[in-house]
Amino acid sequence: MSKGLPTDPYKGVRDFYPADFAKREKIFSAWRAVSRRFGYEPYDASPLEATEIYAAKTGDEIVGEQTYTFTDRGDRSVTLRPEMTPTVARMVAARRRDLAFPLRFYSIPNLFRYESPQRGRLREHYQWNCDVFGIPGIEAEVELIQMAVESLQSLGLKPENFEVRLNDRAALSGWFEAQGYSNTQTKALLRLLDKRRKIEDFDAQAAEVAGKPFVFEMGEPESVRTVREQLALRKITNVSFVPDMVRGFDYYTGVVFEVFEKSGKNPRSVAGGGRYDKLLEIFGEPGIPTAGFGMGDVVLGDVLEDAGLAAGEATAPAVTVIPLAAEQVQAAEKFADQLRCGRSSPSVAVDPTDRKLGDRLATAGKRGSKFAAIVGPKEAASGTATLKNLETAEQSAAPLTAEEFAKNIG
Amino acid sequence: MSKGLPTDPYKGVRDFYPADFAKREKIFSAWRAVSRRFGYEPYDASPLEATEIYAAKTGDEIVGEQTYTFTDRGDRSVTLRPEMTPTVARMVAARRRDLAFPLRFYSIPNLFRYESPQRGRLREHYQWNCDVFGIPGIEAEVELIQMAVESLQSLGLKPENFEVRLNDRAALSGWFEAQGYSNTQTKALLRLLDKRRKIEDFDAQAAEVAGKPFVFEMGEPESVRTVREQLALRKITNVSFVPDMVRGFDYYTGVVFEVFEKSGKNPRSVAGGGRYDKLLEIFGEPGIPTAGFGMGDVVLGDVLEDAGLAAGEATAPAVTVIPLAAEQVQAAEKFADQLRCGRSSPSVAVDPTDRKLGDRLATAGKRGSKFAAIVGPKEAASGTATLKNLETAEQSAAPLTAEEFAKNIG
Repeated sequence: MSKGLPTDPYKGVRDFYPADFAKREKIFSAWRAVSRRFGYEPYDASPLEATEIYAAKTGDEIVGEQTYTFTDRGDRSVTLRPEMTPTVARMVAARRRDLAFPLRFYSIPNLFRYESPQRGRLREHYQWNCDVFGIPGIEAEVELIQMAVESLQSLGLKPENFEVRLNDRAALSGWFEAQGYSNTQTKALLRLLDKRRKIEDFDAQAAEVAGKPFVFEMGEPESVRTVREQLALRKITNVSFVPDMVRGFDYYTGVVFEVFEKSGKNPRSVAGGGRYDKLLEIFGEPGIPTAGFGMGDVVLGDVLEDAGLAAGEATAPAVTVIPLAAEQVQAAEKFADQLRCGRSSPSVAVDPTDRKLGDRLATAGKRGSKFAAIVGPKEAASGTATLKNLETAEQSAAPLTAEEFAKNIG
Repeated sequence: MSKGLPTDPYKGVRDFYPADFAKREKIFSAWRAVSRRFGYEPYDASPLEATEIYAAKTGDEIVGEQTYTFTDRGDRSVTLRPEMTPTVARMVAARRRDLAFPLRFYSIPNLFRYESPQRGRLREHYQWNCDVFGIPGIEAEVELIQMAVESLQSLGLKPENFEVRLNDRAALSGWFEAQGYSNTQTKALLRLLDKRRKIEDFDAQAAEVAGKPFVFEMGEPESVRTVREQLALRKITNVSFVPDMVRGFDYYTGVVFEVFEKSGKNPRSVAGGGRYDKLLEIFGEPGIPTAGFGMGDVVLGDVLEDAGLAAGEATAPAVTVIPLAAEQVQAAEKFADQLRCGRSSPSVAVDPTDRKLGDRLATAGKRGSKFAAIVGPKEAASGTATLKNLETAEQSAAPLTAEEFAKNIG
């Protein structure tokens, strides 16, 4: 046997074996359930998008180095979407006249970024995106934050495990303007502020842009206070005003928020979003008041793993039907089919291989099957199977019909 | 307002608005339900794969022109997966020693092909993939075909709407060998045979390769007859032997099958698969007896659309809560929250915009909400809402508490 091709996935992306899939599905199910309860409708799109929709309003870091961008044979520049917001804005702009507002949309797309894989950051991740179009008032932000919080709690996290951080981009711009900074200075200072905790010589860099020592002291904006109060009415109190939280994307126009886990093990945000009332303008449509957020599966997966909450529901077939010998394969297949009746049927697999019974029982148990249905000559003749509980090794005294079998496994 | 960027999706891919999403979800649900019933476990992987895994055993057409392939900045050649089989083979090869066989895996990946979009063929589609590893016997093929058939029937199609076509690649190779053709000739003739119905001068081209007039007359192989008989025992009789059906991929080693719709409107196959016992060898692992199939969502979607079976479940919020004026927004939000209790809660949206009540009721009805909960000053004071059925325009005589409201909407 030659050495063969490597079996690793591409760098920075994941294979999802059934147990990994189940973990992912646990997260997705929580996201879908919250979306549905709050009246958000599902949408989706291709990961392939025209590059130009990212160039317009997105932060520099993303536009430049961090996307998968290539030119197709029709000479179109194509990008694997690094975020979903431009896509949903495109879709809403396309059907603006047909859609009913306020419009609540959610999606769980995979997103791609060309970057060095590290804890909390991969080249491909899934992100729950919720957006509400057509609500100018702060109720939109409050609702979105409530959804983010409820999703985390429905996954088993406690309020003391995480916190919501709030700021207001419009208030930030206003503060810089009031201090006499130019637009260019403001933009540069916001960039620096966004990375304040990562930059060692923040004071020096900021002073250089500001032309003087940079002192940042902004009081809590009314918008932020209102959101905090409204959330408190919903018993969500792990919320604070963080004046130097900016968020990377340039398109935010009002309240912004991020959710952080508090153990210190996961420095990246679990979720983030805010208001962006003007994004539709890049598609030649008047702006629609819009707020939205994204929550990724990688940081959240790490948080759940740390908290012992990651495992998903078992995916193994509940029953493995095992014919004793080749002569009973047909009867075993038939018995399996009788067990599989309608959508509420158990999950039933057949092991028709010629390995020893004991080996096949061991394999079925290893996979996670709870029950074996053994079909020997006697069972084959009467259309029955002997039930074996693979966890307790208990066995039915007599062979059972499919109906009896189904009742016994509850 | 400037003209702005185009709002179309990238060429040959689809946007899924909620109604489109619901159609897709109807198909996916049917696929998942059948997978589960037959004991197949879900897996997934990234669409990004190393190009080399497609070069080894795939048909020429795919390797060359029809993939999205690019070089990343680490000088790796990356391909957006055009099919799932090499990926699942890679994953099984990677964990061969830990996995329990027979192993049944399914996935619903999106696949990418760079080709001219046309009916039944897009640049991105979803494909249900079911594979069983470790069963050398024909039961594997029978089970897979049964699953394909049951999925179509669970979507509402009738046996007379489609047919299963069978052949055997090993028998084909044997026939060519028995006729004295070389391996090269056999390969070339199989390629031609695969496209027989699309090639006008098939006879001339085949004669040129064969070095004599090419006469193809192969009797039904035993494997095919056995599969037909086994399927008949499961009451699946819309099955025929089609000797010139080859299937494009080079990796098949035994029985191959395709499912076709019979109206004549959809000439492309709805599903196809077969046995490929050697695919793991490209990863330096001994072959494992394997059979699998794929069923795409594009042709199937067309078939369901033609049959009036495409529409999915409604995604609109069941209830839209409408505060009469700004003063009742808080009470409306609170009432909505009371309706949203646990996972079995109805889907509840709030419309806090300042538009007229009639306009907001009309919007909610247009979207598909069945009920409105109207919160005026009286309702706000008592923590209640007036129920309006948006289909019948009936209204509750008195305001209802959230509990009463939930009961009234069933």
